[in-house]
Amino acid sequence: MHLSTHNSFVLERAKIATWQEGRFSVRDLHDVHIENGLIRSVLPSATGPSHPDDVARIDVQGQLVTPGLIDCHTHLVFGGNRAAEWSQRQRGVSYQDIAEQGGGINSTVRATRQATEDELLRAAVPRLRNLMSEGVTTLESKTGYGLSLEHERKQLQVMDLLQTKFPVEIVKTLLCAHTLPPEYKNRPDDFINLICTEIIPTLAREKAFESVDVFCETVGFNLEQTRRVFVTARALGFPVKGHTEQLSNSGGTQLVTAFHGLSADHLEYLDSEGVNALQRAGTVAVLLPFAFYFLGETQKPPVDLLREHHVPIAVATDFNPGTAPFASLRWAMNMACVQFGLTVEEVWAGVTYHAALALNRADRIGRIAPGYQADLLVWQTQDPADIVYEQGQNFLKQRYFKGKSTLA
Amino acid sequence: MHLSTHNSFVLERAKIATWQEGRFSVRDLHDVHIENGLIRSVLPSATGPSHPDDVARIDVQGQLVTPGLIDCHTHLVFGGNRAAEWSQRQRGVSYQDIAEQGGGINSTVRATRQATEDELLRAAVPRLRNLMSEGVTTLESKTGYGLSLEHERKQLQVMDLLQTKFPVEIVKTLLCAHTLPPEYKNRPDDFINLICTEIIPTLAREKAFESVDVFCETVGFNLEQTRRVFVTARALGFPVKGHTEQLSNSGGTQLVTAFHGLSADHLEYLDSEGVNALQRAGTVAVLLPFAFYFLGETQKPPVDLLREHHVPIAVATDFNPGTAPFASLRWAMNMACVQFGLTVEEVWAGVTYHAALALNRADRIGRIAPGYQADLLVWQTQDPADIVYEQGQNFLKQRYFKGKSTLA
Ligand SMILES: [Zn+2]
Ligand SMILES: [Zn+2]
Repeated sequence: MHLSTHNSFVLERAKIATWQEGRFSVRDLHDVHIENGLIRSVLPSATGPSHPDDVARIDVQGQLVTPGLIDCHTHLVFGGNRAAEWSQRQRGVSYQDIAEQGGGINSTVRATRQATEDELLRAAVPRLRNLMSEGVTTLESKTGYGLSLEHERKQLQVMDLLQTKFPVEIVKTLLCAHTLPPEYKNRPDDFINLICTEIIPTLAREKAFESVDVFCETVGFNLEQTRRVFVTARALGFPVKGHTEQLSNSGGTQLVTAFHGLSADHLEYLDSEGVNALQRAGTVAVLLPFAFYFLGETQKPPVDLLREHHVPIAVATDFNPGTAPFASLRWAMNMACVQFGLTVEEVWAGVTYHAALALNRADRIGRIAPGYQADLLVWQTQDPADIVYEQGQNFLKQRYFKGKSTLA
Repeated sequence: MHLSTHNSFVLERAKIATWQEGRFSVRDLHDVHIENGLIRSVLPSATGPSHPDDVARIDVQGQLVTPGLIDCHTHLVFGGNRAAEWSQRQRGVSYQDIAEQGGGINSTVRATRQATEDELLRAAVPRLRNLMSEGVTTLESKTGYGLSLEHERKQLQVMDLLQTKFPVEIVKTLLCAHTLPPEYKNRPDDFINLICTEIIPTLAREKAFESVDVFCETVGFNLEQTRRVFVTARALGFPVKGHTEQLSNSGGTQLVTAFHGLSADHLEYLDSEGVNALQRAGTVAVLLPFAFYFLGETQKPPVDLLREHHVPIAVATDFNPGTAPFASLRWAMNMACVQFGLTVEEVWAGVTYHAALALNRADRIGRIAPGYQADLLVWQTQDPADIVYEQGQNFLKQRYFKGKSTLA
């Protein structure tokens, strides 16, 4: 082994667990050859020396190797903190009283606007670190607390900074149509005008984001407003996605599919027509078990129907300050099984291959296969179920991002 | 500051949060003087120099200081792993089929009996470490997977080893009457005989445990069997406690209170008579939100009634291999709020003062007060709500166990 060949190495005798032949499954003893940050080959270990002798070899000793985890729905970058108002709610103070005190999502908007980039960065770092310590190598991050050109741009710039500073891939999504900023109170259509005529076009020219999201809900934006945002995004060449059917069946999912959206997210109130629409469009169903848990929701997404119709199911944290203040994808995996009845294999597919699909990257990340980015995790167990089942024990032994070892 | 005086130091300018004047509350800027592992004084910081100049001073800069966390109900020591059988259940395999394959609690009993002390120790260490990393300084640990004199003793010896190796206090509880071992199949009364005539008396002579617990439930031991164990324990001078009203209203709680038990644990199906009994006996109600979550339970413990009757409420992980595979007291705190509606103050009392009450140690741990053991946590926040609300970010900055700094 020569140090100069570190760009090329082999993870030997790995139990690989990845999407293969149409499902997430495990194969014993394979050698994964990594070169220049990509997976070059994946071959059964028993076939003898298949690599040049000057390639570094790391014996995984039969332990599990999976793709890096992908958290395909987060609101990672924001200012402020809503713990104190939650504490009030637990003591019986009403939502309305808290809103009148300036609480709720408006307080996050206010704090995000007031914060400097550096402050937003420092707030995001411990959350990002925790996700990475669990094995996350790619995560999506939405704007939506700036709600003006200047402050949405600031959120996006913080995401760029995070990606520069940490070994992680950050996928930027523009979610201007998240909530109505105070200066547009009772004027949602005017705000949609601003989004469609100024914010999206300007940030599109700056290549500052990758896709466009809308919170389509009775308490968010209606179908017509959502449609206007989607039309604008598609006209400029951007894929869309939506927060849909979380609190009610509003038909947002069908709208997302009509625009060939990447994903429809939440979906507790999705009906069979919505499932059919997802199937026809090939849109990913992203389940967000933390919000379900935290809001005490009882209506579950129609997992059986999604399965029957072969809709790809992803699972994400939805990490955000108000309804999912939990930067842990492994706990989200557990909750997707316990609350929604996903199998271990489904939830693993949901944070690897299907999450990559939802992020328009399924040709590049989310699988252990030749040509894929070498985002790989070596675990201190041989069973993917352990990692979903038991929380509070970090089974992660080694994390490779683009072929580089990145676990302290 | 002399190094020789490290046995004596002051945490200066601490925002202390502790049980005081009948509730868990926060006070600004106090100095906590620690000497020889005990809290010597707690005084407002503004009062000027109140300590000799040669005492080391650590400026906490207004950050939060709390008592060490106490996890008053765990099953930390066991062999084997039930992730694979859970994965089968998620795929639709029935409980019965899994039991016929030798799964369920019997598999844990088998694996615990087969394991050496060292194997049990190594399995427990990462779980214990995670609890400690969150701030746990005392935890209760139950037997109940050995189910014979030899193997119950082995579990207890592993707890002793853990306490020797780590800066943590472990409270040992004998839970022989946890489940029926295979050799006593269909002979529960004979097993109760064994417990009462051999296991309890022998291990009592060896001073190997501190209190006695029973799983009193339709699928566990009935009231008469529970009574026999309690009579034996009390006759030998040991306090009792019970797993009661978890799956049905069986009256186990009243039985625990009739023996002046330390705590009744679970309590989802507790009725108002049970609440009255707890109040009269001064028995602690220990809520275990992980089991509720993991079993998909919908019946919640009667928190409002417990409050009205001033029953002390504790919160614990119930960490165990089958129904709560989660070594995280902070997540349990979150779930106690989200699922059961506890307030932040109640849940903090539940892992400090009330947990100490449940472990018969309220005169010694669980509070920041003169004479108490210096088990103290310094947090990177000023609000106790943060620590309950946000998961995936470890706010713990420093952990003192018996006055010694123990965070790496
Ligand atoms: Zn979201
Ligand atoms: Zn228990």
